[in-house]
Amino acid sequence: MRIAVTDGIDVDAKKDLQESGHSVSEKHYSNDDLIDGCISEYDVVIIRSATKLTADVIKANTANGSKLSMIIRAGVGVDNIDLSSASENSVLVCNTPSASTNAVVELTIGHLISSCRKICTGNKKMRDGVWAKKQLRGSELRGKNLGLLGYGRIAKGVAEIARSIGMKIHVYDPYVESNEKDCVYHDSVESLFSTCTHVSIHCFLSEETRHLVDYDMISLMPQKGDDGNLCGNHIVNCARGGIIDEVGLYRALTDGTLATASLDVFEVEPAIKSNLLQLEGFQATPHIGASTKEAQRRIGHEIVSIIRAHSKGEIPGSCLNK
Amino acid sequence: MRIAVTDGIDVDAKKDLQESGHSVSEKHYSNDDLIDGCISEYDVVIIRSATKLTADVIKANTANGSKLSMIIRAGVGVDNIDLSSASENSVLVCNTPSASTNAVVELTIGHLISSCRKICTGNKKMRDGVWAKKQLRGSELRGKNLGLLGYGRIAKGVAEIARSIGMKIHVYDPYVESNEKDCVYHDSVESLFSTCTHVSIHCFLSEETRHLVDYDMISLMPQKGDDGNLCGNHIVNCARGGIIDEVGLYRALTDGTLATASLDVFEVEPAIKSNLLQLEGFQATPHIGASTKEAQRRIGHEIVSIIRAHSKGEIPGSCLNK
Repeated sequence: MRIAVTDGIDVDAKKDLQESGHSVSEKHYSNDDLIDGCISEYDVVIIRSATKLTADVIKANTANGSKLSMIIRAGVGVDNIDLSSASENSVLVCNTPSASTNAVVELTIGHLISSCRKICTGNKKMRDGVWAKKQLRGSELRGKNLGLLGYGRIAKGVAEIARSIGMKIHVYDPYVESNEKDCVYHDSVESLFSTCTHVSIHCFLSEETRHLVDYDMISLMPQKGDDGNLCGNHIVNCARGGIIDEVGLYRALTDGTLATASLDVFEVEPAIKSNLLQLEGFQATPHIGASTKEAQRRIGHEIVSIIRAHSKGEIPGSCLNK
Repeated sequence: MRIAVTDGIDVDAKKDLQESGHSVSEKHYSNDDLIDGCISEYDVVIIRSATKLTADVIKANTANGSKLSMIIRAGVGVDNIDLSSASENSVLVCNTPSASTNAVVELTIGHLISSCRKICTGNKKMRDGVWAKKQLRGSELRGKNLGLLGYGRIAKGVAEIARSIGMKIHVYDPYVESNEKDCVYHDSVESLFSTCTHVSIHCFLSEETRHLVDYDMISLMPQKGDDGNLCGNHIVNCARGGIIDEVGLYRALTDGTLATASLDVFEVEPAIKSNLLQLEGFQATPHIGASTKEAQRRIGHEIVSIIRAHSKGEIPGSCLNK
């Protein structure tokens, strides 16, 4: 097959594809090139987030004589692909949903501990020549309630590690069954926030979840842990920007409603001008949830499997419009 | 009993002691005051690290007519107490060894993930106005070998969480029995380092362990994880400064032998002038391993138990010279 790679690919995956007899062309295209139908001669196009396959682009590349039969998103989010246009034009769309799960799980736990123990603040102060030992008293996770807003693959991975740390797991997710015994299921977001000093967000961004976590919701958090310690309230978001109302978050961090907040995702990215960045209780990373060597390698492996299935005329398991 | 507290105490513990009928005097003394015998009229003295109870001080406060029968170190290290002089003068010395265990365990895991995922660097760069998403590809812990140098209470706590993350546990400790099945026991430090891309230090500082981890030892680390990923080598030390040779550490971080090093403890503290602080792969906190609200509260509880036992004429479990 002829494969166009527009936003990069793992070197081993490229080699595997070539060794299987496919031709792989790595080139990023402008929107004008895409509208001109530059990928219509390829069987498969592999994109990340930088290439936008709008309805017009898909239409232009699936006109008469086009070979395009599959779009692969190397990663999870398919906001940059017009799914219905792909379906109308008989193009399968696949992503690699589980490849980055563990990378996000570990980052979430890292953010939780780092913020509660003020690791970044300590590191920064030492580099500034200040030994702030006495100012950096933190709090422990053990014995606290961890509220998971959304309980899919990533949240379940976080729960497993958090349990080994000694946290109690609380969940709100109207789309999953309440069938785990080591888990307290809540029937409202308010109930979850009222119970948990620590909350980690693991839901999709949708009209239902946009600004779901605002100042009023954060104000419900109990400040005092289930173990009787006044640990303050802590929020982590490594899911999607926009679920937290950042204006409310700023207010909560400023008036003590929140002790810490750690975000890997933001309402507007790159988020380098956010006023949150001036607050000591705030900790941020630039959307690096999936950014590990291992995740990129697993994405490569998944892409190879998807193309192998497609070559045999099978529909891959991760196909979103079969 | 009359109790002197020279370096501070948890408020609840103080209240508990007073409600049990003890008198508690909180005051820090100079070395001259101590040599003058200012604590000889107390039954118990509670110290942290700031008060030095040398042989001379203990002798001066246990002369004829003295009441002093117990020294309590609120914390673990008793380097600041002359144990043999205490024993000679019939003064019991107790510490609170397990109170800070979990605080150090969580900090160790936090340092491990933070450094491998470049959380502090990402946080710093965002505050400097740089969205370094593409420069911050990290590596995952899952599937890697974690080498624990020393396998006491804290290392066992770290092992439990690291296993839930999916790491394989390797141990070198000549003083513990090799009886856990989920653990690979090594018979030399060299063997441990040759096997593990990630090493965390959990031994005491002694002549045996001083500079045990030097450039040559670090050079044995394999760079490539047991899962086949080239994750680089990573070291964490939340135990005691001096076990790592910091000159060798600097060299290893500079030439790529180490990808990251995270220290909470240093050869000389406060370590604000260390040249390590100029390196991006280096992450540091100012000796905050035990610095959580929960640990300080548990230390308070242990002190109350120790004094309760002492009042009844019993010898507390944590007594170091019974």
